Amino acid sequence: MAVTPQPRRQVFEAEKVDFAGNEEYIYRGGRDKYKLLTKAFEGIKKIGVIGWGSQAPAQAQNLRESISEAGIKDCKVCIGLREGSSSWQEAQACGFREEDGTLGEVYDIITQSDFVLLLISDASQAKLYPRLLAGLKPGATLGLSHGFLLGVLQNDGVEFRNDINVILMAPKGMGPSVRRLYEQGKTVNGAGINASFAVHQDATGNAADIAVGWAIGVGAPFAFGTTLESEYRSDIYGERCILLGAVHGMVEGLFRRFRQQGMSDDDAFKHSVECITGPISKTISTKGMKALYESLGDSDKKIFEEAYTASFGPAQDVCEEIYDDVASGNEIRSVVQAGERFGRFPMGKIDETYMWKEVGQRVRANRKESEIPLDPFTAGVYVATMMATVEVLRSHGHPYSEICNESIIEAVDSLNPYMHARGVAFMVDNCSYTARLGSRKWAPRFDYMLEQQAYVAIDNKRAQDPELFGKFLSDPVHKALAACSEMRPPVDISVGGDNSQEGVGVGGARTEYRSAVAA
Amino acid sequence: MAVTPQPRRQVFEAEKVDFAGNEEYIYRGGRDKYKLLTKAFEGIKKIGVIGWGSQAPAQAQNLRESISEAGIKDCKVCIGLREGSSSWQEAQACGFREEDGTLGEVYDIITQSDFVLLLISDASQAKLYPRLLAGLKPGATLGLSHGFLLGVLQNDGVEFRNDINVILMAPKGMGPSVRRLYEQGKTVNGAGINASFAVHQDATGNAADIAVGWAIGVGAPFAFGTTLESEYRSDIYGERCILLGAVHGMVEGLFRRFRQQGMSDDDAFKHSVECITGPISKTISTKGMKALYESLGDSDKKIFEEAYTASFGPAQDVCEEIYDDVASGNEIRSVVQAGERFGRFPMGKIDETYMWKEVGQRVRANRKESEIPLDPFTAGVYVATMMATVEVLRSHGHPYSEICNESIIEAVDSLNPYMHARGVAFMVDNCSYTARLGSRKWAPRFDYMLEQQAYVAIDNKRAQDPELFGKFLSDPVHKALAACSEMRPPVDISVGGDNSQEGVGVGGARTEYRSAVAA
Repeated sequence: MAVTPQPRRQVFEAEKVDFAGNEEYIYRGGRDKYKLLTKAFEGIKKIGVIGWGSQAPAQAQNLRESISEAGIKDCKVCIGLREGSSSWQEAQACGFREEDGTLGEVYDIITQSDFVLLLISDASQAKLYPRLLAGLKPGATLGLSHGFLLGVLQNDGVEFRNDINVILMAPKGMGPSVRRLYEQGKTVNGAGINASFAVHQDATGNAADIAVGWAIGVGAPFAFGTTLESEYRSDIYGERCILLGAVHGMVEGLFRRFRQQGMSDDDAFKHSVECITGPISKTISTKGMKALYESLGDSDKKIFEEAYTASFGPAQDVCEEIYDDVASGNEIRSVVQAGERFGRFPMGKIDETYMWKEVGQRVRANRKESEIPLDPFTAGVYVATMMATVEVLRSHGHPYSEICNESIIEAVDSLNPYMHARGVAFMVDNCSYTARLGSRKWAPRFDYMLEQQAYVAIDNKRAQDPELFGKFLSDPVHKALAACSEMRPPVDISVGGDNSQEGVGVGGARTEYRSAVAA
Repeated sequence: MAVTPQPRRQVFEAEKVDFAGNEEYIYRGGRDKYKLLTKAFEGIKKIGVIGWGSQAPAQAQNLRESISEAGIKDCKVCIGLREGSSSWQEAQACGFREEDGTLGEVYDIITQSDFVLLLISDASQAKLYPRLLAGLKPGATLGLSHGFLLGVLQNDGVEFRNDINVILMAPKGMGPSVRRLYEQGKTVNGAGINASFAVHQDATGNAADIAVGWAIGVGAPFAFGTTLESEYRSDIYGERCILLGAVHGMVEGLFRRFRQQGMSDDDAFKHSVECITGPISKTISTKGMKALYESLGDSDKKIFEEAYTASFGPAQDVCEEIYDDVASGNEIRSVVQAGERFGRFPMGKIDETYMWKEVGQRVRANRKESEIPLDPFTAGVYVATMMATVEVLRSHGHPYSEICNESIIEAVDSLNPYMHARGVAFMVDNCSYTARLGSRKWAPRFDYMLEQQAYVAIDNKRAQDPELFGKFLSDPVHKALAACSEMRPPVDISVGGDNSQEGVGVGGARTEYRSAVAA
């Protein structure tokens, strides 16, 4: 796996950063950098954003505003949609218009654009890429927010045309959070969400400038280098693990367990879901995983240790399986196949069960943030699964910035706040189809694995392993995370609860979610 | 998908059978046919059975006894094992000896044998096949009990050597049941378990005779034609669906649901697990799925209809995903990858949770067969999932004999009786590694899908669909199943309970299971 490439650049300054003894190069964003977009985007008259799912509305609006602030007059951000797409109106409501050429049919926009952000769903990319790629002008730049398409090409045994740039800019969070943090950050020097970027093919010699400019223009306070392959592996993997799949399966199982042990329904929800999305996420976000453990009293520390020790191995088992399935192309093939079944089998809702529909809504309505319990058992299981997610990425050679983002930061800073606001579907179903499918696929695996292996070991008093726990305490990831945390956006994301539209954003995935809420 | 090939044959007589309007050719076995083995196995002096897992001990012992009864003096059944294999002693205890050349090292046995039954685990086949195939004599016959290896070769883009026969004989049940029914059948004309067979490559011109002889020699009362590809798809698929994965996930979820609704733990277990392994399996086995519904009173019929209607679609959704993953090679790749992880992540036990460890054991200890309830809700969910398993196979062109065996007969006649005897692991972990992995992978998916989609629909009174239920009542599979059922073994399998070794058999998978019971 390639580590932190330092691509050819002229416009932006890289900074060397030490992540627990590993050097990486990063780029610093912020509103004061927008003026550099003039040079970075030189020659780009039209940026075509294709799609209106999770990422497209956020990136298109952020870019449009940043370009405007940079004072660039001759570069338009345009949206390309299918004829008859149900998103047409929503794009219009966001100020994209056919009249001024900023809203049009997909292939028209592609053939006109100098820079094409291909932000339709992964499954659609897999299906349509031969025609989409054929439409690009020679010398144009293809921008991906996910290396998924490279995985598809690898499965199909083909390569990108060599007369175009192929770059990646992957925000470390779902679209609505990309938009939300950009808006929140307007008063604090352009805070948005961190991003990774990659240059896969540089046909024009300035692909790196375009990629970094894209990241900074969308609002990234910091941009980290990666490769398309490293990105798609860590991204598809991470969302199946602690970011979405594992945390969902875990709270389903913990909720059951706590009820079975005699807690009231509301308390069981508080000690599982609320505890993770509240105090656990907050502490990890600001102080790290180790600080979470150290904040506990002595008897709670023992409970945490047991829960951690029992859960790490089983969680790692599932994480390794996921990584293998991603690296071998299995997960990508599965997503493509699922796309072909959508007509007959649309994705069902995951939050209509008693746990989410009745208990979750009630608990949130009566929530007092300061009274959410920090359950040491839940904390141990959660941190163990997070560390398992870290360990597998590390063993496969991913750079620390990617590990920290895809295993920790994205969870506590971007995703868990959505579950906190409105429950599990609001987190999962605001993400890409690839993520939503993956979460549905792997959540139950983590649930069963923890129940059959970890909790059984605890209940049978087999969960003692001081060596394993010692490794946790001295793990270098804590230092790397601290370094990464210095690069977090200057504001916390804030999202409205069940009866608020604050931070909800627009776009396909979210629209579908909203219709679920309305139903 | 090829349907019922009628291969070149000289020794055995095919019979034409009508399965709901579709003609297939079948072969009839029985002890009176053993004498034909003399001709079918002409020129075969040594049959090398490689491995000692689920199938090998059963097939080797059955074949040895059938050949002896046929009066064949110059054909030896031998076992090939790794040097130092822990199964060496068990094979000796079954009468295979180094002294007389009937027990030896894998590659020695392969190079000496005229007919090699390759019955090591699928993952091992995937790893070792280049060397294993290279060892075969020209003109020898390679016998597989699963088309898995063809799937591996397809993924790898290679083919079998063309100077050997490649045939398949796949018993419609796990190894211990193959042995158990053969033993039980000694007094009733050699009943064993039905099998499918295929000729993939016929280098010597008599491969079909060897294949049918193999089926009949192992005790199959009836043998059905198929192809390697059709077999591996339906087999890997079926065990992930109603045969193992779906039924496991289903009873976990039903047990939870019934407890949540206020049933005692024991009653919840009886209304979920016991009800399926007892009256539901018995009725389907002898009278079919429709008869199960028709045996209910009017109000119970309504409950069955609702449960069926709500469960069919969600179950079919998962079944289609499984079929796609099998057909695309994903599942085979996953199994091969899991094999490479076994050293670090051995498969964990699935029956140490409260449900199986405490409740299940207690319910079985106090069981009165006649008092096991027939719960109409459980029956509706179970039959819907069975019908979903059927529907997906049918839509992909599998012959009815295969559909009925892989979706219905194997479940109620071979597998569920093992869960009835000792719980879920005794059923799942007596099967092949491929099956055990698949069951662990997909059980939780069925559980979540039924809970999130089917039960939510029922609880919200959305589960009405007379058209869907009408289709169930008039489905041609009922007729096909009736035709298949006339070809069932003349005795029911009988397996000992928690404190009995009756029908447990020997072999790797089971040994591992037994150690779990002892622990």
